[in-house]
Amino acid sequence: MRKTVLSGMRPTGRLHLGHYFGALNNWVQMQNEYNCYYMSADWHALTTDYADTSNVAGNILEMVADWLTAGVDPQKAVLFKQSAVSAHSELFLILSMITPLGWLERCPTYKEQKNEIKNKDLNNFGFLGYPVLMASDILIYKADYVPVGEDQLAHLEFSREITRRFNNFYGNVLVEPQAKLTKSARVPGLDGRKMSKSYGNSIFLGEDDDSIKKKVQTMFTDPLKIKKDDPGHPEGCVVFAFHKIFNKDFKVRQEECKAGAVGCVACKKQIMEMLSEFMKPLAQKRKDLISDKSYLQKIIDEGSSKANETAQKTLAQIRKALKF
Amino acid sequence: MRKTVLSGMRPTGRLHLGHYFGALNNWVQMQNEYNCYYMSADWHALTTDYADTSNVAGNILEMVADWLTAGVDPQKAVLFKQSAVSAHSELFLILSMITPLGWLERCPTYKEQKNEIKNKDLNNFGFLGYPVLMASDILIYKADYVPVGEDQLAHLEFSREITRRFNNFYGNVLVEPQAKLTKSARVPGLDGRKMSKSYGNSIFLGEDDDSIKKKVQTMFTDPLKIKKDDPGHPEGCVVFAFHKIFNKDFKVRQEECKAGAVGCVACKKQIMEMLSEFMKPLAQKRKDLISDKSYLQKIIDEGSSKANETAQKTLAQIRKALKF
Repeated sequence: MRKTVLSGMRPTGRLHLGHYFGALNNWVQMQNEYNCYYMSADWHALTTDYADTSNVAGNILEMVADWLTAGVDPQKAVLFKQSAVSAHSELFLILSMITPLGWLERCPTYKEQKNEIKNKDLNNFGFLGYPVLMASDILIYKADYVPVGEDQLAHLEFSREITRRFNNFYGNVLVEPQAKLTKSARVPGLDGRKMSKSYGNSIFLGEDDDSIKKKVQTMFTDPLKIKKDDPGHPEGCVVFAFHKIFNKDFKVRQEECKAGAVGCVACKKQIMEMLSEFMKPLAQKRKDLISDKSYLQKIIDEGSSKANETAQKTLAQIRKALKF
Repeated sequence: MRKTVLSGMRPTGRLHLGHYFGALNNWVQMQNEYNCYYMSADWHALTTDYADTSNVAGNILEMVADWLTAGVDPQKAVLFKQSAVSAHSELFLILSMITPLGWLERCPTYKEQKNEIKNKDLNNFGFLGYPVLMASDILIYKADYVPVGEDQLAHLEFSREITRRFNNFYGNVLVEPQAKLTKSARVPGLDGRKMSKSYGNSIFLGEDDDSIKKKVQTMFTDPLKIKKDDPGHPEGCVVFAFHKIFNKDFKVRQEECKAGAVGCVACKKQIMEMLSEFMKPLAQKRKDLISDKSYLQKIIDEGSSKANETAQKTLAQIRKALKF
């Protein structure tokens, strides 16, 4: 029998190449091998951005358009909206009752985010309970695998621990999810930091040609390579990171750069062309998709209905186990 | 238009005279004046007793039998089971996201119970969030009034604060509930402490005659009144507290006691008879009710279905306000 995969993204707006090479590529692969549930996590968006929710609905459509642009197929995977499946909230409530406070307070991402994110008020009950909601998302579909980066391993460990606690109290109903550590290319932002919308260093999926070319112009390169024939240091260069993704002959380029045999201008120009070629069909596809919002909405509605069916089955077993 | 009232009890088993005179009497009164929602709070039972839920379903039937015995009328009030109305959990999740942790950590009942209850593990996320769930219970029915004792005022204040916070972010959807401070007779337990099942000092609703008589024998009386004609101190005497409830001439008795004109044995005997007379019809009613469990179940199912209807209406408005 096919194993089940759960993955999700917060609807924060358009997706960029970091999402594409870091996650969506894997989603497209996984949909052929697993029962995949891909979630637009709108309730999660509330944990950090509760005060203004006016963009959430629009962001969901933009995001789903990006999913489809990248090749996610609603005939193969279930694309759904978290808040349309109320069973997540019921499991969240039940798991809340058996979650030791210390497990949450000691969660490394909780401490880290509280330290790092200074421009948002994170002192909320829901933010502290973020891992409980994430566990509910996973467990309500009895997902066997969750594709995660290393920074998410602690959350998945929490999901397994709470599963064991639940099953210990009430009987074997929930399934311990395993991490699926995914091989994904790291795409740096234009400035060399992690590509992130909030850093303003992103290239968006389906972005138009002119805009991409201007952005590539601003990419950081090796500061020690001033003249064309100065020997360069490709390992720290943003443009070279893009070559590693788009240029199958990137190893040749690596040697050329080190030897001072190619200049940064030419090197950038080549990436411009390759990115352009890569993006053009995606941009067209995305344009068509986003012009038909009712089609996107239909996909989400139908997916949510399927997700509901699965979630209600698990919920019935949970209620029975609780003897309520 | 009729105002709405929400009240609830945890399904911890049979109810006693403390519940009857402290709450049920009021429920019976209120059902004639308000739209009343009376809730069996099974999810709340999890906050402190999560590890063993095997008694919950049975306790609900026992409790509903007690409600009906006391005169609560399913034709007038909506009697329902909290866990059968999933909208409570969805509102709980949403309110969690906008609840400042400090509001919960500073809640006086939270600190008090953590200090006082030593035989249970209360260090759970759900126990900390108890006021959030209670607020959800109230707000999902847009209840105008909640009958509360003084010890619950802080919880109701929390419900109002979270209502203002929600309405401030998302628009005027929720209604601030007001406390309905109820005049209720204080019924002491047999030993003079608060009547409580866990103290083993209770007289249960519909308890049989022999058992009641034995219990009255054990009631604490004034320790300074040894002989029949010693002057007594009725204000601290359990038997006299019962006279205040059951004997319309309790003021005469008060003077007799003080004057040493009546002995404790005779005084107790009179309460035995009055309690017996009071309880006999209730015991018969309760016996009939508890013998027909499917009838009790039907009442809960029908009430839960009505409660669901109201709750779903509020939930639709909440979702719309959140623009999800």
